[in-house]
Formats: sequence, C-alpha cells, structure tokens
Amino acid sequence: MPRTLKLTIQYDGTEYVGWQRQARGVSIQGLLEDALRPIEGAHVHVFGAGRTDAGVHALAQIASISLTVAIEPADLGRALNAVLPEDVRVVNVEEAAAGFHARFSATGKVYEYRIVNGPTMSPFVRRFAWHVSPPLDLGAMRDASVLLLGEHDFAAFKGRRAVVKSTTRTVHRIEWREGSGNDVPLVMEIEGNGFLRHMVRTIAGTLVQVGLGRWRVDQIPEILASRARSSAGTTAPASGLFLVRVLY
Amino acid sequence: MPRTLKLTIQYDGTEYVGWQRQARGVSIQGLLEDALRPIEGAHVHVFGAGRTDAGVHALAQIASISLTVAIEPADLGRALNAVLPEDVRVVNVEEAAAGFHARFSATGKVYEYRIVNGPTMSPFVRRFAWHVSPPLDLGAMRDASVLLLGEHDFAAFKGRRAVVKSTTRTVHRIEWREGSGNDVPLVMEIEGNGFLRHMVRTIAGTLVQVGLGRWRVDQIPEILASRARSSAGTTAPASGLFLVRVLY
Repeated sequence: MPRTLKLTIQYDGTEYVGWQRQARGVSIQGLLEDALRPIEGAHVHVFGAGRTDAGVHALAQIASISLTVAIEPADLGRALNAVLPEDVRVVNVEEAAAGFHARFSATGKVYEYRIVNGPTMSPFVRRFAWHVSPPLDLGAMRDASVLLLGEHDFAAFKGRRAVVKSTTRTVHRIEWREGSGNDVPLVMEIEGNGFLRHMVRTIAGTLVQVGLGRWRVDQIPEILASRARSSAGTTAPASGLFLVRVLY
Repeated sequence: MPRTLKLTIQYDGTEYVGWQRQARGVSIQGLLEDALRPIEGAHVHVFGAGRTDAGVHALAQIASISLTVAIEPADLGRALNAVLPEDVRVVNVEEAAAGFHARFSATGKVYEYRIVNGPTMSPFVRRFAWHVSPPLDLGAMRDASVLLLGEHDFAAFKGRRAVVKSTTRTVHRIEWREGSGNDVPLVMEIEGNGFLRHMVRTIAGTLVQVGLGRWRVDQIPEILASRARSSAGTTAPASGLFLVRVLY
C-alpha cells in the first residue's frame, strides 16, 4: 500500500521554466521527479500546490507524492537535497493522510510581491524583486488594495492564455510592508482562496500604476467590472513573486 | 584644479576577484576605473576604503576619486550604473574635501558576517551567507566575542600571506543578531578601527567553533596570546562577509 508524503520546497525560480514540466527547459517538478525515480525505482508523479510560472520563487511550495519504498521522511529530504541543485531545497518531508493532494486539498494560498522602490536596485535582491524607481504613494496603493478584497470576478487580472472554468476568486487579505533602503523591499502580501494565472503579478502591476499616480484609486472597481485584461495594469515581472504559504 | 568625489558602492562579490585590480579576473576597482575612463578621458585611479577579498560583498564600500571633468555627482552615478554590471551599483556620489582619501581618512569600519544555522541552506541567501548545520550556542559565542573587544595583537587572526607593519587592532563592538527560519541569517556585526586581511572571517570561524562546543570560551585569550594563525579557527567562507559601513 503506497503512502502519501507531503513535501515543503523552497526555490529560486530564476533559472527555471516554472513549477510544471515543459517540453523544453528545466522545471521544479521535473527536477523532483527525476530525483525521486532512482529512490522509488519507478516514476513518481509530484503534484504541486501552485503551478508557479517561469522565474517565480517559492518560500514554501507544497507537493504531494505517493511512495511505496520504505524510507524515513527526513532521510528522503536529505537524499533529495543531495542531488537537487542548490537553488531548490526540500525543507521538510512528512507523512500525510492517504487522501491528501497538495493542489486539490488546498483551501488558500499566500503570495508575496516584492518591490525595490528607489533610484538604485540592490545587487542582493535584484533576482528577487521588481525595481520601480519613482517614489510610490503607498497610502494610495493601500486604499486601492482594499477595493480588491472579497469575492470578485478577476477576469481583468488573469493572463491572456489562462483557461479556467470560473474567473471568480476571493481575496481575503492584502497587506503592504514598507521597505528600507534598497536592501529591504516593499512587500505586498496577498491571501486568497486561489489565484488565476498572472493574477498576483497583474494586481501588483495595477497597484503600482496607482502608486505612481498614473491611475486613480477609484478606477479599481471599473477595472474589475470591465472583466477585460486590457484595462488592468501591466503584469509585474516574475522575479518579484514568491509563493509564501499554502493553506489546508 | 581636479575635485575629489566620494562614491558609495554596493556589490555582490560572488563573481569577482575582490576589490583590488589583479593580473587576472575582474575586480570591482577595475570595473569602476574602466567605467570612469571614457567619462574623464584619462585613467582615473579609484581608491577603496576596504580591499575586500574575492567573493566578499559590500553594502556601502567607499571610494574616492579625483576628477577634472565637469559632471554633476548624480549624473556621474547614473552614467556609471548605466555601464556597470547589475551586481555592482553606485548608490551615492558626492563632493568631498580636497584631502579626502577613502582609505587613509577612514577611522573605522563595520563588517557583518552572516550565517544560516540549520539543516537546510536557503536558495535565497546561499550566495550571501555561510551554511552551518548543527545548532550553534549563541550564548557561548556572545561570551567569547566579549573577550575579543578592545586593543589586541590579532596576529593569530590574520591571513598567512597578509604583510602588515603592525598586527594590533582595536575591536570596538561585536554584536550578534539572531536569525529566523533559513531566510534570515544569524548576523555578527563587528566594528573596529581597522581589520587585518581575513581577520573578520577568522573571528567568525573561531566563534563558530565555540558555538559548536568544540572550543571553550576561555580558549579565546590563549588564541590571542599565541599570535599564531594555526591556533585560531578556520577562515569562514567569503560568501558570508559584508563590508557594511566605513567610518570617517
């Protein structure tokens, strides 16, 4: 009887095509599946909670696997880290209930979007943030964030190629933490029951337009109502996005 | 009459042979001098406050230059950043008094040494910290740090190839800030009137031996008294070291 294991994974997504296996390029899922194969002696399908895009990072991506081989969870973590590249780390492995599925069991997710706001990008966070030079009006961005809370049709904030049954999602919380110097980025933390493809990056891009004074706070409801991707702001770069926590 | 300018520079030292120009490899000083040449129309010598080694980082290295060309300080900073690689940034340029010299005018320096203490190195700080897996006894490390404060002959803590007139230095302050998870490293902040080559890294390496329980706190005075490099701990890796501030 195979058992179910829950993996917590960190990665610097800069060098990867994203979570999901692709025809070309190296994916996080592919790296994990390739590392698990010799341990299990067969292909192991790795299900991730969030299918992060190319260049997106994870502080705690969750994955579920089904394994027959007898190996202690901690030993499995060490064995995987021994062969994985240093920018992908398994930080925890634990037994999970038989029905646990990283993606379908998830009830919500927390993402962070990080921005260095100032004239000079820091060499230390350049892989992990978006550089926005002109000063941002954080008060206006916070006011605009409030208008995105709750259940909405987020069609205007989804990637053009995203194919989904419903574009309705509930955003429970958007919080902004101030940065300091160019080393500690300004951070938007957003929690919701789920996110459409590019949704967090489009929200970040749109709120930055408000912060730059190019768009007014009261345009947010109009953008939501339009349900048209063309009315929202640009998709902020992948480098600033982190999957922070998966809720079960 | 040439004027003197003071530059504040940040760099991720991972890819460089260090501050100082070398026969082979790319140095920070070399990058800056190469970037300044077409602006001045002649070679400009860049004097750095601290000659950081290969792989060592700087949050605020200070450099002084003598320039004849008429250019606003802020414009010079922008012009340099336009040609420098992204892991080297000029964060400030200002006019300085005629006699100002980044190195000889300095009265002290502050360095940080960063350690990720736990089973798994973070993908996000792996270029910017030393990974020490077994738990460190921070209390013992703090106790040992106190014994290094004040004026001492630090011969036991200098790199073997370091050639200097005197090995006496004064350490004003050693403070440890606790880490959190594997993303926020444990940090040693050290301030002194000057540091011998490899001195901060050897102090970090020695204090980690104490933190691992391999050496006793009361061995510190013996190590200092020995004046022998062989009695101190290993040189901690360059990746964890940051030049944080230069005092004038």
